[in-house]
Amino acid sequence: MHILITGAAGMIGRKVTERLLKDGKIGRREIVKLTLHDVVAPDAQPTEKTTILPIAGDISDRSVVDRLLAEKPDIVMHLAAIVSGEAEADFEKGYAVNLDGTRFLFEAIRLKNYRPRIVFASSIAVFGTPFPEPIPDEFHLTPLTSYGTQKAVGELLLNDYSRRGFFDGIGLRLPTICVRPGRPNKAASGFFSNIIREPLKGEEAVLPVSESVRHWHASPRAAVGFFLRAAEMDLDALGARRCLGMPGVSVTVGEQIAALRKIAGDKAAKLIRREPDPVIERIVSGWPTDFEARRAQEQGFEADTDFEAIIRAHIADEHDGRAPVMG
Amino acid sequence: MHILITGAAGMIGRKVTERLLKDGKIGRREIVKLTLHDVVAPDAQPTEKTTILPIAGDISDRSVVDRLLAEKPDIVMHLAAIVSGEAEADFEKGYAVNLDGTRFLFEAIRLKNYRPRIVFASSIAVFGTPFPEPIPDEFHLTPLTSYGTQKAVGELLLNDYSRRGFFDGIGLRLPTICVRPGRPNKAASGFFSNIIREPLKGEEAVLPVSESVRHWHASPRAAVGFFLRAAEMDLDALGARRCLGMPGVSVTVGEQIAALRKIAGDKAAKLIRREPDPVIERIVSGWPTDFEARRAQEQGFEADTDFEAIIRAHIADEHDGRAPVMG
Repeated sequence: MHILITGAAGMIGRKVTERLLKDGKIGRREIVKLTLHDVVAPDAQPTEKTTILPIAGDISDRSVVDRLLAEKPDIVMHLAAIVSGEAEADFEKGYAVNLDGTRFLFEAIRLKNYRPRIVFASSIAVFGTPFPEPIPDEFHLTPLTSYGTQKAVGELLLNDYSRRGFFDGIGLRLPTICVRPGRPNKAASGFFSNIIREPLKGEEAVLPVSESVRHWHASPRAAVGFFLRAAEMDLDALGARRCLGMPGVSVTVGEQIAALRKIAGDKAAKLIRREPDPVIERIVSGWPTDFEARRAQEQGFEADTDFEAIIRAHIADEHDGRAPVMG
Repeated sequence: MHILITGAAGMIGRKVTERLLKDGKIGRREIVKLTLHDVVAPDAQPTEKTTILPIAGDISDRSVVDRLLAEKPDIVMHLAAIVSGEAEADFEKGYAVNLDGTRFLFEAIRLKNYRPRIVFASSIAVFGTPFPEPIPDEFHLTPLTSYGTQKAVGELLLNDYSRRGFFDGIGLRLPTICVRPGRPNKAASGFFSNIIREPLKGEEAVLPVSESVRHWHASPRAAVGFFLRAAEMDLDALGARRCLGMPGVSVTVGEQIAALRKIAGDKAAKLIRREPDPVIERIVSGWPTDFEARRAQEQGFEADTDFEAIIRAHIADEHDGRAPVMG
């Protein structure tokens, strides 16, 4: 089996790649080759079982997409995207990569006339306020960003191309990934991870919103599990509605901090500095807080059990089970 | 005021054009020019107040779109589309005209850097079974045709371009138009009109489904009213959700026939020949039957009062108030 991952140098892309190389198979089928795409060539190393073809390029360039599909990969995990903030700041680039790039990929597959599995990374950004809490699976998509719009268009195309039999597709609306490893970033959502990751290292973190803010989270580990499940499951049960809200953990910032305190003690919790930022408060107030995600759960997608489990997964994956600051 | 109508040679396009030329204004503003586009040049005649620029061309050709926008029309009514059956039969043509054509139009407006009113003709084909009855305004879009997919993508783009301030857009999800004037056509939905229009002329019509089939209708006259309302109303009240299900009349085929009998007598009703067609039965069983359409009604969009009113509007508009067969 040959798997193509677009956006393979991103955080989730790297973790999915690692896991695939470690497992060496999906279901019962051996993975003999990974084609790893990103704007810079991903640097994963081949194993005895699995060769790696790195391809650097912009998926809004049709010739790049043609190279990605040249060997007709059996599974395509499409994660490449311009992120929310950049797609909002650079309208043309966002549409070029997130909409045209996705369509070029789907079109290239259609014209190759085979029927691979496509796993498309969508996002809860397809939803925009006002909405009920929790949001049911049948609630309409009302994105309030260009990024969310582009993901929602990708979902519609994926449904139609699947219905027409050009490929066998599934879209995963990912919760906010928490705890994101690496350095603090300036994404408006960054603080959800910063306030856990930094104190565990003994570093200060800034909390720009009130503790009553509620949001929807999944660990990187759970997200990797979603992609593996989506790659191997039978999609016929989904019918024509191929895009699913992934299960997650709905918690307030206060509950996040309580979980951190339980695992890493007051010493960690005290490293969180309150510094209210009205701009971030306003942005975050338009974000979804909770989902039913019933269909995904019926299809065997598994969320983290609670926010403590999310922190423990982070400590296991990024600190080999023992963070510098622990209770 | 200068208005561009794409698809102006279509049934609704012609009726909107006629009405605009007759009124000579929208709200209080005089219509000094109509640019009328279609694949063949529309043949409407200018009036004392209003000049006409006919343009023939394919809107999936950017140079045609540039010509349409050259004089920066104040209002763009975008009706041009490949219809459902053809978009399903010719995948590439449907995407070229319905998706690329719409996007080229929106992009051309964005790059002209002015902020016209856009009225986009969407369709209840953005919904696909299963759904609740009636379908609420917040139900997700689950098209089961490529046409419905393309219209749903157009809605998402319209919302995003409006949110970004590139234009002031509104999308109208039109009910099935009934009674369509002209000859019987082979669209799966054709019989809804055929069984009224033909008997009123003393001609036989075939009914391929059972009388219990329920569907959602608006007269051509009501549809024209939707476009006029959309062109003149203040759109700020819609917020970011610019696409509205238009109000209609939900009736069974049996109720349609009873209304025909009431207006045109048994003689007319007896011209309907039952000839069950399992293929059409199956297609129609996936169509929406009823909508809440609450938002549109709050915004002053007005449906026909009932199916009798729909028949009377047809007799008034197509037979000068007196059909050949009447009770």
